[in-house]
Amino acid sequence: MDSVPTAVQPIAFETDPSRYRHWKLAFDGAVARLSMDVREDAPLAGDYRLKLNSYDLGVDIELADAIQRIRFEHPEVHTVVIASAKDRVFCAGANIFMLSGASHGFKVNFCKFTNETRLAMEEASRHSGIKFLAAVNGVCAGGGYELALACDEILLVDDGSSAVSLPETPLLGVLPGTGGLTRIVDKRKVRRDLADVFSTVAEGVKGKRAVEWRLVDAVYPKSRFDEEVNARAKALAAQSDRPDAGTGLVLGRLNPTVTDDRIEYSSVTLAIDRARRTAELTLQAPGQPQPDTPDAILEAGDQYWPLRAFRELDDAILRLRVNEPEIGTIVVRATGDPQAVMNVDRTLAAHQEHWLVREIVLFIGRTLKRLDLTSRSFFALIEPGNAFAGTLFELALACDRSYMLDDPERPNAIALSDMNRGAYRMSNGLSRLDVRFLGEPGNAEAVLARDDAFDARAALEAGLVSFAPDDLDWDDEVRMAIEERAALSPDALTGMEANLRFAGPETLETKIFGRLTAWQNWIFQRPNAVGERGALKTYGREGRPEFDWRRC
Amino acid sequence: MDSVPTAVQPIAFETDPSRYRHWKLAFDGAVARLSMDVREDAPLAGDYRLKLNSYDLGVDIELADAIQRIRFEHPEVHTVVIASAKDRVFCAGANIFMLSGASHGFKVNFCKFTNETRLAMEEASRHSGIKFLAAVNGVCAGGGYELALACDEILLVDDGSSAVSLPETPLLGVLPGTGGLTRIVDKRKVRRDLADVFSTVAEGVKGKRAVEWRLVDAVYPKSRFDEEVNARAKALAAQSDRPDAGTGLVLGRLNPTVTDDRIEYSSVTLAIDRARRTAELTLQAPGQPQPDTPDAILEAGDQYWPLRAFRELDDAILRLRVNEPEIGTIVVRATGDPQAVMNVDRTLAAHQEHWLVREIVLFIGRTLKRLDLTSRSFFALIEPGNAFAGTLFELALACDRSYMLDDPERPNAIALSDMNRGAYRMSNGLSRLDVRFLGEPGNAEAVLARDDAFDARAALEAGLVSFAPDDLDWDDEVRMAIEERAALSPDALTGMEANLRFAGPETLETKIFGRLTAWQNWIFQRPNAVGERGALKTYGREGRPEFDWRRC
Repeated sequence: MDSVPTAVQPIAFETDPSRYRHWKLAFDGAVARLSMDVREDAPLAGDYRLKLNSYDLGVDIELADAIQRIRFEHPEVHTVVIASAKDRVFCAGANIFMLSGASHGFKVNFCKFTNETRLAMEEASRHSGIKFLAAVNGVCAGGGYELALACDEILLVDDGSSAVSLPETPLLGVLPGTGGLTRIVDKRKVRRDLADVFSTVAEGVKGKRAVEWRLVDAVYPKSRFDEEVNARAKALAAQSDRPDAGTGLVLGRLNPTVTDDRIEYSSVTLAIDRARRTAELTLQAPGQPQPDTPDAILEAGDQYWPLRAFRELDDAILRLRVNEPEIGTIVVRATGDPQAVMNVDRTLAAHQEHWLVREIVLFIGRTLKRLDLTSRSFFALIEPGNAFAGTLFELALACDRSYMLDDPERPNAIALSDMNRGAYRMSNGLSRLDVRFLGEPGNAEAVLARDDAFDARAALEAGLVSFAPDDLDWDDEVRMAIEERAALSPDALTGMEANLRFAGPETLETKIFGRLTAWQNWIFQRPNAVGERGALKTYGREGRPEFDWRRC
Repeated sequence: MDSVPTAVQPIAFETDPSRYRHWKLAFDGAVARLSMDVREDAPLAGDYRLKLNSYDLGVDIELADAIQRIRFEHPEVHTVVIASAKDRVFCAGANIFMLSGASHGFKVNFCKFTNETRLAMEEASRHSGIKFLAAVNGVCAGGGYELALACDEILLVDDGSSAVSLPETPLLGVLPGTGGLTRIVDKRKVRRDLADVFSTVAEGVKGKRAVEWRLVDAVYPKSRFDEEVNARAKALAAQSDRPDAGTGLVLGRLNPTVTDDRIEYSSVTLAIDRARRTAELTLQAPGQPQPDTPDAILEAGDQYWPLRAFRELDDAILRLRVNEPEIGTIVVRATGDPQAVMNVDRTLAAHQEHWLVREIVLFIGRTLKRLDLTSRSFFALIEPGNAFAGTLFELALACDRSYMLDDPERPNAIALSDMNRGAYRMSNGLSRLDVRFLGEPGNAEAVLARDDAFDARAALEAGLVSFAPDDLDWDDEVRMAIEERAALSPDALTGMEANLRFAGPETLETKIFGRLTAWQNWIFQRPNAVGERGALKTYGREGRPEFDWRRC
């Protein structure tokens, strides 16, 4: 990354246990223990200190990496205990001084990433046979409690002082925005009046009352705490359908070639045009035959195309979000042999029950959701030589629009596979085809029933693409669409896309990103939080915050 | 209102057809025609001109009143045609110059009220047997199209130029925030890519394409338009279960006594303590026997207690929202004879199928939803002499918390009735008891099964109140709770309450108030919209907006 000559050092999202500074990862049979041990003097950037296991993006990047590696590299792990290596401190939450010094955009992206990490834990619990247990040994405040809330169960030490708390509203004038408010009433189903009290008392709730209010699952005296945590971890592990032994695959480094305006991976390229504030994101279909059994996939390891390509895509999206805020419009292409993608899809569909294939499919799904949740405009361009088939066609479905060239002289087609049936669900719980055809129920089944590929006219007719200009119109129409998009208010587009992309039902996940995040982003703009005398700015300094008391 | 000596003239929400300046209401059997005919020179306040049937809060207050009166005063009306009295103009949407000059808080409350008006139309369609038909005869932009979207069907004139459009994003850098984005993809189920295109082209979509994209239900040439509108209005009217004839009741003026710190109605009092930034909102149970048959209710007219009391409550909430922004914490009491409320509830429950009783129950439900959606903290105080029974106990359930005095010397009880079963649903579609007991399914049924009243201990045990202090603790505990609440960041509380109050499923309605509104409020804070060179500020003036291009 050091070849990038931008003013602010770009943030890299890749790490591995040998480089962790803030977490300790230990394995004991079916139970992994992930212990937070934040180094005060190792912030990601800036001069704040990470006291009391408070976290910044650097800490969370390691957490996300650890969970990802447990899923892929340790099939024998069935329970993850989220713990602390510090005495009487679990986690004090997101670091306030980091937050109060961060730009609005950075705050928003920090919260988005930490939310995705926690939702990935819940997804692993629901679909991967990995349960999470929070062993809360002391101070558990704000984002610390939100991390615990993302676990299946929360055990709290009963020592007369250790409490769980969401002190954001009383102390900082902001929300517990990493899912906290949503998870207490929607996941743990804390009664709304008790949730109201809990969210306004800075000291939180401890002991039996924490159990009675459903804020934690159990409390134990210090003398029995470790023993109870271990027993519960083993009991949770026994429910898993993961293998009891065997090896996983190792997630190696991606090693992209990074220059000022281009990130090049093996199957993904992100090319940036700063003058136009656009980028071209291209995925390349596999160029070589891919393994077609779980054993062969295990042998291919992290070089197996779908895993490698989507890890690259994931990394590219994260860099784009945080390091390239001004690049607002992304042109998405898929190139290469669509048949190669269809072959991969057949393997994925046939072996979805195998733990490793399941992990790969879930990971592709998470990456596609990362794209759904990225506040940039995505336009798919489908041209001759495209590989928008099956899994790669999900990319086109995730885009805000798609343009497909209709030129009888140059064949151009797209295709669907069984992997478009619902293997990759949006955060609202529906497949992208089902969301697309909410108004025409039955259409999703109809297009999936078709065996052969769709040329541009068939795709347009079936509602699979937005427009199908002919070769006379193509260049102008596409160019103008991109130019016009890039000229619109970036904020209005962010709000517009957040509303249009998620039609249909809402889930815990969409509530966190829609309702909770949208309100938090509003508060993050308000002088009562971020003004000179706002609560977030005055925290830890002399003097009290000053509020404009008008409610709105 | 002129006795109120505040700097800015308070806004009154009561009106009646004799005072309308912007709408014409005509009746023809089962069809009412509500025609927008906005007087350019009659803005509610300020020096903007209401050109092209653009609207401000004053226009919408009349719309809300007209719909309310049709429901109560005209049982014979089965279809309402929303039309325009102006040639080639349906409605140009919310007035931009009003919006760009308004404070943030006023914008937010304006949008909330207009959203509630439109949702009341959809509620009347679903539950009252009144269908709405938008007869779009010309320009139909932004809030104009959002008004049409709230109707059951949209007919558009096909004259080569009339189009429906949501030009907010391209022209103003804000969202179509009065339900527009939500209703196109969630109600009309417009495909998301087409919705994306539609929401970014200022000129909108017309003719056949508007039908194909599901933006309107039909288009007709000008020569046939009126005839088709009339035919469709009659066809919709034929589906209704409202009476074919007969009289309704007349909604007379409320005539509260208004002083600087007090609004006093017949059954409702709002007493304001500006120094503490709190208010006391008190509802009085009926003091006299109430009619117990539909005919007797019709005869009692607008003096029938539940209708009168909740009309007063509705008016008090609206005044509080717009005229008293600094009053953040509201203490809610119900006083009088609880048995009188239970008697009323028996009548309401027994005659819910009667059109008038149905309207009264629906109206009480809308008023309670208005309270749910009011961004102030509500604490119920339940003391000896309280009338928190049945319908009035819904008020306590709508509050963020409730405190009930537990003093064996002074009996104090609450009671439930059949009206707590789901007659008054929250915007998420659940009863307040069901939302309260999401974590303890079965509890709602259990408390409803109990015949007698709950004293403080029983209420606490059953989970119906938050706290039950004894007489030694009562004064201090309640006083401190209110003081502490009033000291918290008003913005953080708004966001917190918007998340904690609406646990459970989301609906079109909650999506509009949670997701869409929260994003709109965010955008309404952003310099890209409201800064000196923001799009909302530069609209209609010289020069183009200047954007900070960073996406977040």
